[in-house]
Amino acid sequence: MEESEQLKKIKAGDVRTASRLIRNLEDEIPEAKNALKRIFLHTGKAHVVGITGSPGAGKSTLVDALITSYRKKGDTVGVLAVDPTSPFTGGAILGDRIRMQKHAEDSGVFVRSLATRGALGGLSKAVGDAVHVLDVMGKNLILIETVGAGQQEVDIINHSHTVIVVLVPGMGDDIQAIKAGMMEIADIFVINKADRDGANKLYNELVAMLNMAHEFPGGWRPPIIKIGNCFDAVSFAQSVDKLAATVADHYRCLEETGLLGDRMKRKAMVELGESLRDAILSPILKEMTQSGEMDLFVEKLLKKEADPYTIAEEAARRYLK
Amino acid sequence: MEESEQLKKIKAGDVRTASRLIRNLEDEIPEAKNALKRIFLHTGKAHVVGITGSPGAGKSTLVDALITSYRKKGDTVGVLAVDPTSPFTGGAILGDRIRMQKHAEDSGVFVRSLATRGALGGLSKAVGDAVHVLDVMGKNLILIETVGAGQQEVDIINHSHTVIVVLVPGMGDDIQAIKAGMMEIADIFVINKADRDGANKLYNELVAMLNMAHEFPGGWRPPIIKIGNCFDAVSFAQSVDKLAATVADHYRCLEETGLLGDRMKRKAMVELGESLRDAILSPILKEMTQSGEMDLFVEKLLKKEADPYTIAEEAARRYLK
Repeated sequence: MEESEQLKKIKAGDVRTASRLIRNLEDEIPEAKNALKRIFLHTGKAHVVGITGSPGAGKSTLVDALITSYRKKGDTVGVLAVDPTSPFTGGAILGDRIRMQKHAEDSGVFVRSLATRGALGGLSKAVGDAVHVLDVMGKNLILIETVGAGQQEVDIINHSHTVIVVLVPGMGDDIQAIKAGMMEIADIFVINKADRDGANKLYNELVAMLNMAHEFPGGWRPPIIKIGNCFDAVSFAQSVDKLAATVADHYRCLEETGLLGDRMKRKAMVELGESLRDAILSPILKEMTQSGEMDLFVEKLLKKEADPYTIAEEAARRYLK
Repeated sequence: MEESEQLKKIKAGDVRTASRLIRNLEDEIPEAKNALKRIFLHTGKAHVVGITGSPGAGKSTLVDALITSYRKKGDTVGVLAVDPTSPFTGGAILGDRIRMQKHAEDSGVFVRSLATRGALGGLSKAVGDAVHVLDVMGKNLILIETVGAGQQEVDIINHSHTVIVVLVPGMGDDIQAIKAGMMEIADIFVINKADRDGANKLYNELVAMLNMAHEFPGGWRPPIIKIGNCFDAVSFAQSVDKLAATVADHYRCLEETGLLGDRMKRKAMVELGESLRDAILSPILKEMTQSGEMDLFVEKLLKKEADPYTIAEEAARRYLK
């Protein structure tokens, strides 16, 4: 397909064209990358929301409910699921992809899952690329669902403007440490499964921890929203609506305080770093692998005839100007 | 310190010299890197054991108990804690670093925590480097403690010969998916806090999942070991001893079946890839940042005057031969 034709179709929200492009980007097809260069210049309209939390925190149910909430108000939604424990990605195992089927017929909703890949840091770049496609499709809200707070998850979450951290009561002693790790990245806390024992304790702990913070950039003190899966349907929907409204409040706060610029800058830096790795390191690794050189080096390492640091320095001399 | 003197001291198990080298490696001091080249050629004697599991799975208590078990038998132990929720790394928050104090006076035990760092994938390389230092110190067992099963954790765990996955009962529905993610990397399963409700259910689920596997490389079917924190002290220690014996069994199996060679090869490839990134990409990123070029590019990206893919391609043309 001609590039301008492709762009036009994606701008019109064509699901097949967008899906094919995302797939081709994952497969590293050069034409797809060229298309992305053009697409990038048309991005920047969507509000990107990262949703993270421990496995079992019920993030997928929450994403599902958020979609319903946004659709009620007429917002269009794109979802990128990069959580290995998510039904969107791991659905074949859990058999509950079915939950998403109510949105399958809705052209205002576009869901893609991105699998973990072997390449160093490749997943976060794939997320950044896919966000651009969803943005140009005209989705107002783009939800990135991931798990945990390791380096890779933080990289992924850096593609978003607003970060929701989902917690559940009764995770045991280590909750203090989990919260400490997630505290720094959270704009909004959700206490999910808030009908469980320990929800108030968790709430009080979070409040106490927030009280210890010296300052909140832009005066935004991360709100804590309780959501209960087993509440009656009305109050469940109401608490999800409240979450959606809080997400909008956060974006407004970013705009009004000028913090949005900082977030955009962070996003751009992450993306540039990932693109540089992709353009500079990846082709070298590929060449060394295809020429069989990599295997030879591994042999030498195993026999302790060489060390990896010297090999890498020699490769740098060979490939770098 | 002269290099051969440093190597001699580390070989003699000198804690101060080893600690300083690991710290200097983290700080990327060139002399430290040169020392590591030499050290690498003396490595390969230790049995490296990765321990992973969800936050709250009680990995640190288990590591602590494993140290005690190994010391009873006269083995020396090195521990690298890269789990952000671990008391070894997050101890300042939890205040239970105290648990480790009983080993603080024991010269047969060396514990280091490695913090998450900003650099792309830098943490896994830091783990690999530190493993070499502990290996040359003469530690028989090196335990790497990390959390979860994301890409970064898998990278980290690839530095080890034997992988223990720690699970706890009562994590909810998503346990199926968590287990699926960890299934592929596990050599040994531990059901921790096995005195809790749901331990038998979890055990049966794991057995059922293992029964579905088509084959086990080397005929090693990952054993499932139940450990209960609240069992009486004797049976707790016995189950930890059993775990230590199983870890030794696994190494023997690797040796006897020739699979050890595959693991060593995987370890070497991971390490080579990380060293190449460090030698080729890192200096370019550094130069572009220090010259202020990176900031200029980010400005252009924000104004949609350029796209990251084209910028990266141009940088590749500039830096690569």
